[in-house]
Amino acid sequence: MMQFFYSHNIIKNVDLKDMIILDKIESNHCMNVLRYQIGDQINVVDGLGNLYNGRIKDYIKKECHIDVLDVSPKYKKRNYKVHIAIAPTKNHDRLEWFVEKAVEIGVDEISFINCKRSLRKQVRMNRINKVAITAMKQTLKAYLPKINCYKKIKDFIDQNNKKRGFICHLEDGNKKTFFDYKSMIYNEETYVLIGPEGDFDEEEIRYAASSNIKPVTLGDSRLRTETAGIVSCQLINLLNA
Amino acid sequence: MMQFFYSHNIIKNVDLKDMIILDKIESNHCMNVLRYQIGDQINVVDGLGNLYNGRIKDYIKKECHIDVLDVSPKYKKRNYKVHIAIAPTKNHDRLEWFVEKAVEIGVDEISFINCKRSLRKQVRMNRINKVAITAMKQTLKAYLPKINCYKKIKDFIDQNNKKRGFICHLEDGNKKTFFDYKSMIYNEETYVLIGPEGDFDEEEIRYAASSNIKPVTLGDSRLRTETAGIVSCQLINLLNA
Repeated sequence: MMQFFYSHNIIKNVDLKDMIILDKIESNHCMNVLRYQIGDQINVVDGLGNLYNGRIKDYIKKECHIDVLDVSPKYKKRNYKVHIAIAPTKNHDRLEWFVEKAVEIGVDEISFINCKRSLRKQVRMNRINKVAITAMKQTLKAYLPKINCYKKIKDFIDQNNKKRGFICHLEDGNKKTFFDYKSMIYNEETYVLIGPEGDFDEEEIRYAASSNIKPVTLGDSRLRTETAGIVSCQLINLLNA
Repeated sequence: MMQFFYSHNIIKNVDLKDMIILDKIESNHCMNVLRYQIGDQINVVDGLGNLYNGRIKDYIKKECHIDVLDVSPKYKKRNYKVHIAIAPTKNHDRLEWFVEKAVEIGVDEISFINCKRSLRKQVRMNRINKVAITAMKQTLKAYLPKINCYKKIKDFIDQNNKKRGFICHLEDGNKKTFFDYKSMIYNEETYVLIGPEGDFDEEEIRYAASSNIKPVTLGDSRLRTETAGIVSCQLINLLNA
């Protein structure tokens, strides 16, 4: 089974081969859990789209040193972008599940938005980043999504006015599905706003409408916040397939 | 916000009003957590498609007695069926998460299949049923999916030969997506086989092919077992929308 390791410590050498250092946790996983040996070849991704093939040269002070043999830049780069902006769920585990699944399915950027009815006001970014890295390796991807800190929904909307925005809310109104917007989604940069457990409030929905953000429905089922996030993410990927 | 309670204890009276008894856990949630009072109206589902509206008549020995005022049978019944047959994941939490999300999105039947490379040989059915009930209530549904005990994949295939079967495996071959099979899925009874962490083995794939089960791909991403289950479930629902 193919295995990816992660490192952001890539040392570029002009005269010599480039070198990668795996941190202690990755190195332990490589040498002690999976029992690779010095001289073995492994695959390393940097989260920026580069997939390196390299040879384990040394294992010093619990860190693997890897000689780069080959690099595939822009590995499986896609020509569209998915950005999910989600109100953090009360239960942090559910938020971590969302991040894991979104990375598996394919996401370029995740933002946490502060809404009027948000039940959680903090996100453990360290933990979220770890989950994202693990999911990236697990699903053999080379891009780590950009994960943005918690910010107010209005600030988010104002800062992302170059992208095509959608909002999933439960208020009545004339709503279409993502399928109806296929031409706006295909090969484009798209973001989706996913509300908190108690939904967006009226003012937020009005502000979104005034910013030309399209309301969409995900169907008849009342989905939890994190499920709505995953379903949206999958639909946008699918409409770009 | 609308709230559903669950009971399978519905007492049919020929002369009198029908009556519902909520078990102690549901009753506690109703009376002590949500602070309903005797005389209040509540909604109860039985998992068989009936949505009851009733009035709390009594709270005796920690159990609510409800007078049925009205019943909506076949509440939100759908004219297609989704059945997911999945190899249990090593981590039981991931399996529970799959069940929760499948119920939210919409599933009629879940089976756990024993495959050659399955890493888990037992499923905590009690726990799984609780998760399904909670998800049904949370997403305001009246049907509880049928959840079947662990069985061998071949037995599963033989017993479900009346339904249209699909298999998601990672082996190469000429695979289509669910979209290519839309006409076979729309308004039909469909099942999907989802393999264990190490995928189905060759013999299982051959047996499926010889049973006219169609191989499908979920796209470029290598999804975890539970994610593949959710994504399949959502696609079949979507193709029936």
